[in-house]
Amino acid sequence: MDSSEQRLTATLLLSCADRRGLVSRIATFVFERGGNILELNEHVDSGERQFFLRIVWDMADFSIGPDDLPAAFAPMAKDLDADWKVRLNHRKQRVAIFVSNADHCLLEILWRHSLGEYNADICLVISNHESLAPLSARYNVPFHHFDMTPGNKSQQEEHELALLKREKIDTIVLARYMQVLSSRFVDSYPAGIINIHHSFLPAFAGSNPYRQAFERGVKIIGATSHYVTKDLDEGPIIQQDIVHITHRDTLGDLIRKGRDLERLVLARACRLHLEDRVLVHGRKTIVFD
Amino acid sequence: MDSSEQRLTATLLLSCADRRGLVSRIATFVFERGGNILELNEHVDSGERQFFLRIVWDMADFSIGPDDLPAAFAPMAKDLDADWKVRLNHRKQRVAIFVSNADHCLLEILWRHSLGEYNADICLVISNHESLAPLSARYNVPFHHFDMTPGNKSQQEEHELALLKREKIDTIVLARYMQVLSSRFVDSYPAGIINIHHSFLPAFAGSNPYRQAFERGVKIIGATSHYVTKDLDEGPIIQQDIVHITHRDTLGDLIRKGRDLERLVLARACRLHLEDRVLVHGRKTIVFD
Amino acid sequence: MDSSEQRLTATLLLSCADRRGLVSRIATFVFERGGNILELNEHVDSGERQFFLRIVWDMADFSIGPDDLPAAFAPMAKDLDADWKVRLNHRKQRVAIFVSNADHCLLEILWRHSLGEYNADICLVISNHESLAPLSARYNVPFHHFDMTPGNKSQQEEHELALLKREKIDTIVLARYMQVLSSRFVDSYPAGIINIHHSFLPAFAGSNPYRQAFERGVKIIGATSHYVTKDLDEGPIIQQDIVHITHRDTLGDLIRKGRDLERLVLARACRLHLEDRVLVHGRKTIVFD
Amino acid sequence: MDSSEQRLTATLLLSCADRRGLVSRIATFVFERGGNILELNEHVDSGERQFFLRIVWDMADFSIGPDDLPAAFAPMAKDLDADWKVRLNHRKQRVAIFVSNADHCLLEILWRHSLGEYNADICLVISNHESLAPLSARYNVPFHHFDMTPGNKSQQEEHELALLKREKIDTIVLARYMQVLSSRFVDSYPAGIINIHHSFLPAFAGSNPYRQAFERGVKIIGATSHYVTKDLDEGPIIQQDIVHITHRDTLGDLIRKGRDLERLVLARACRLHLEDRVLVHGRKTIVFD
Repeated sequence: MDSSEQRLTATLLLSCADRRGLVSRIATFVFERGGNILELNEHVDSGERQFFLRIVWDMADFSIGPDDLPAAFAPMAKDLDADWKVRLNHRKQRVAIFVSNADHCLLEILWRHSLGEYNADICLVISNHESLAPLSARYNVPFHHFDMTPGNKSQQEEHELALLKREKIDTIVLARYMQVLSSRFVDSYPAGIINIHHSFLPAFAGSNPYRQAFERGVKIIGATSHYVTKDLDEGPIIQQDIVHITHRDTLGDLIRKGRDLERLVLARACRLHLEDRVLVHGRKTIVFD
Repeated sequence: MDSSEQRLTATLLLSCADRRGLVSRIATFVFERGGNILELNEHVDSGERQFFLRIVWDMADFSIGPDDLPAAFAPMAKDLDADWKVRLNHRKQRVAIFVSNADHCLLEILWRHSLGEYNADICLVISNHESLAPLSARYNVPFHHFDMTPGNKSQQEEHELALLKREKIDTIVLARYMQVLSSRFVDSYPAGIINIHHSFLPAFAGSNPYRQAFERGVKIIGATSHYVTKDLDEGPIIQQDIVHITHRDTLGDLIRKGRDLERLVLARACRLHLEDRVLVHGRKTIVFD
Repeated sequence: MDSSEQRLTATLLLSCADRRGLVSRIATFVFERGGNILELNEHVDSGERQFFLRIVWDMADFSIGPDDLPAAFAPMAKDLDADWKVRLNHRKQRVAIFVSNADHCLLEILWRHSLGEYNADICLVISNHESLAPLSARYNVPFHHFDMTPGNKSQQEEHELALLKREKIDTIVLARYMQVLSSRFVDSYPAGIINIHHSFLPAFAGSNPYRQAFERGVKIIGATSHYVTKDLDEGPIIQQDIVHITHRDTLGDLIRKGRDLERLVLARACRLHLEDRVLVHGRKTIVFD
Repeated sequence: MDSSEQRLTATLLLSCADRRGLVSRIATFVFERGGNILELNEHVDSGERQFFLRIVWDMADFSIGPDDLPAAFAPMAKDLDADWKVRLNHRKQRVAIFVSNADHCLLEILWRHSLGEYNADICLVISNHESLAPLSARYNVPFHHFDMTPGNKSQQEEHELALLKREKIDTIVLARYMQVLSSRFVDSYPAGIINIHHSFLPAFAGSNPYRQAFERGVKIIGATSHYVTKDLDEGPIIQQDIVHITHRDTLGDLIRKGRDLERLVLARACRLHLEDRVLVHGRKTIVFD
């Protein structure tokens, strides 16, 4: 990982109807232009006859310049009627983090970023509260406060979207952001908004999942990271994990233990997304980890 | 465990409103009659101010004979207004297993029993199909077939209950039994019927949980063992566990992976129940493992 | 999985020095002969500059007959100086299981096989004891008893090898077989003998690992499935897993809990091996699961 | 947990040779003085015939003042020839953290402390480097730098011990401290120094465990938190956990994944120790979680 992060690489994500010769055509495209494939993951959903591919290659001796790569690949993609994107690793994704008052997910992401775990630029933090401004400042990330009232949501979202556009944000991470985004907002970032829900969805959707879990008397609690769609807590799931609990755990213990889970599950989902390892297909994800 | 299984021990399970001196009184009751405490677990639900106790003692030098123990303890239990039961380990629980066609849970329990993992007598297997009769026979457990049709359920349950009564059954294990028991049947065995549901409840209650999970695109599947109550899949949970899945797993893979989970979760729940380690309080369980 | 098991497929495992164009050449080989790739896994060990590939394709419209496939691929493999093997799924691996007295691993494998989990023929069971003959008989697998004494080991291994050769055995599974195989025996099955060791290797190698674990006071116990090499417990690891234990667990509890782990870890390793998902490179394995 | 942290409670940890009437005597001691037992855990090691107890009671109506409690209990403890300690929850343990350059364990502990997860005072950080001074400052914990050279270790340890004594430190946490403590230092804090080792001990003791794991080709990596004794990596284990790895994980990935494990395992071990839930018996721990 370390050495590959220094050299220039291209990552292609592609999905299309399955047919013969797809790997051959795409691998040959890379080979004939002097690329050396570093990673290749392929999945065929035989039920839906759909093909999914992730391929990473070394650009060192590639005959096409990085800026010309998308245009060079586009004809084949069109011929395949494929959904696709290609990213050069020196073009980092630009990320905005949305938070409210809880600090654990934000700290986790900013700290990991400081260790070089994410090949991304964390450009700004947006919050409906002011409490996490000092934490953002500590990691030198600009903090923007957007006060939210029942009456001003639509207007504030406009301002947020303008800011995100100005900052060329690719990915939004909801790091325990306690506001529901409007459909209009969600539509602006298809498969580009990652949320963490503090339950093993589809159980305990909605509010106060730990209280719901406590009252039901379950023996596990969980966390789910998913892409945000218009239907709350219904988007494609990227990562889930759980922790065992017992009758000795109070509601406070569930919140404490869940906190550890939330930050780890969200951090892993962010890593997978930022390394272009996730493809969305309907309500499901293909995760090439 | 091995040595304690050979000596005569008593296990007391007790629950009552919390107050001062409960442990002192009960431990002193045991001590003054010559019992040596081998295990003691205590839990106080501070929210509900309820006290739960499990205590196991050596009966070797106990001044009261095993048969007289319940009567000797009854006055204190009455004074405490407690729910309680006491069991001598040489009085094994008598168990009936209900199955349909899937063999994995039945094989698991019969095999573990053959290794001496359960201090219980597995007295009979009841099924609405005949396919598992050979497996029962292999482990020398009588097999009873009760054909079920939409019209005869009520009558067949009568016959089953009569058989269970005749055989003095204490505990019923539904080892992937694909029939819903009537309320009348369930009422006959309060906290005495253990079911395995093939999902992490409360998610995917009802039928075809693996198909539901597959279609939702979750990244974990689970199994839940619980006591059966009148509300299907709503009873107090004893054990839950999960396994991670990926986009590569087909519905068939979920069923295969889930099978491993179901048998282990059910086997553990049976062990906990048969060792008198589970107390029920409302919709929850206290599990002293 | 279900549908792919019915159609005829070919699986190629290949390893060679990494260079440009490997995927392109091999995928094109398949494509030009009419094969549709169903699964493709690729790994490059950048430290060692070694390339590993597993590729499965549909043979329905392949222009080369199954019997001619190895010869058709051999020239390219020779050109690449590759280690490789190709297997048609209708040519099942032939498996022998070695056991002593413990039944749990043998039962697990025979039972899974009876459910269709392994695309293999379990041809025979070999044991230095007679106790598991009835279990083998129950699943209709021939049982061979080879009495082992300090003096006759070399001679008995000769007889075993002759039997294995006669039965055209591809893979040997040591399902808690309590004898050390000679180097000569091991040499006859390179990367073809799978063992289960009842600890998380390299901890607690050698005999009585649960006793070692109990005396050390660890909080986890484990199981390791690995290929057998001349150095005991040092072969390439296929699968490992652990379970948490506490101070309440006696040595007997460790053995009981470990039993569950051993059978699951061994069963998974067998499945990976029998689906040709494991490549060996020095002391390590590449596992395309 | 929340409500019990506000009221005044006493926690007694006790270990002695097992005999009849121990729970009765101790519970009665508490009861007769007006204490209400909130938690009681008991363990009997039947092999060693040793008794272990943890008991927490409400001091609200206790007839003996907090300061007089140890003297009041001492006669019974002496009579039982017991190892014991009693702690009032308003007398917080005083903790020193030793670090080198890695920040993840220190950040984890300071952050959890800021959330109120530990009922302790983190009084100071000691390091042989200066790099983590800003992190300590951020959480308002005094930072002390003790430069270590091959020649000055003995002298510097003297200074450290003097500082620790001056600050009345109860517990030392080695949060990835890359220096071996002298026997003399270790003797000053019996069962009072907690270390995190980055492997599942006893595997990969000593230096560079991740490199050892990488070269061995294991499929799991682990972390172990233990009390420090004179024999490096041999002390009584408090907590262990593991994470699964694959052939795709580079040495850098092991270090990254291990980092998450180390901080969680150390944080949990600290919590257990600081809540007086750990008893040491020879090379083992009894952990009442």
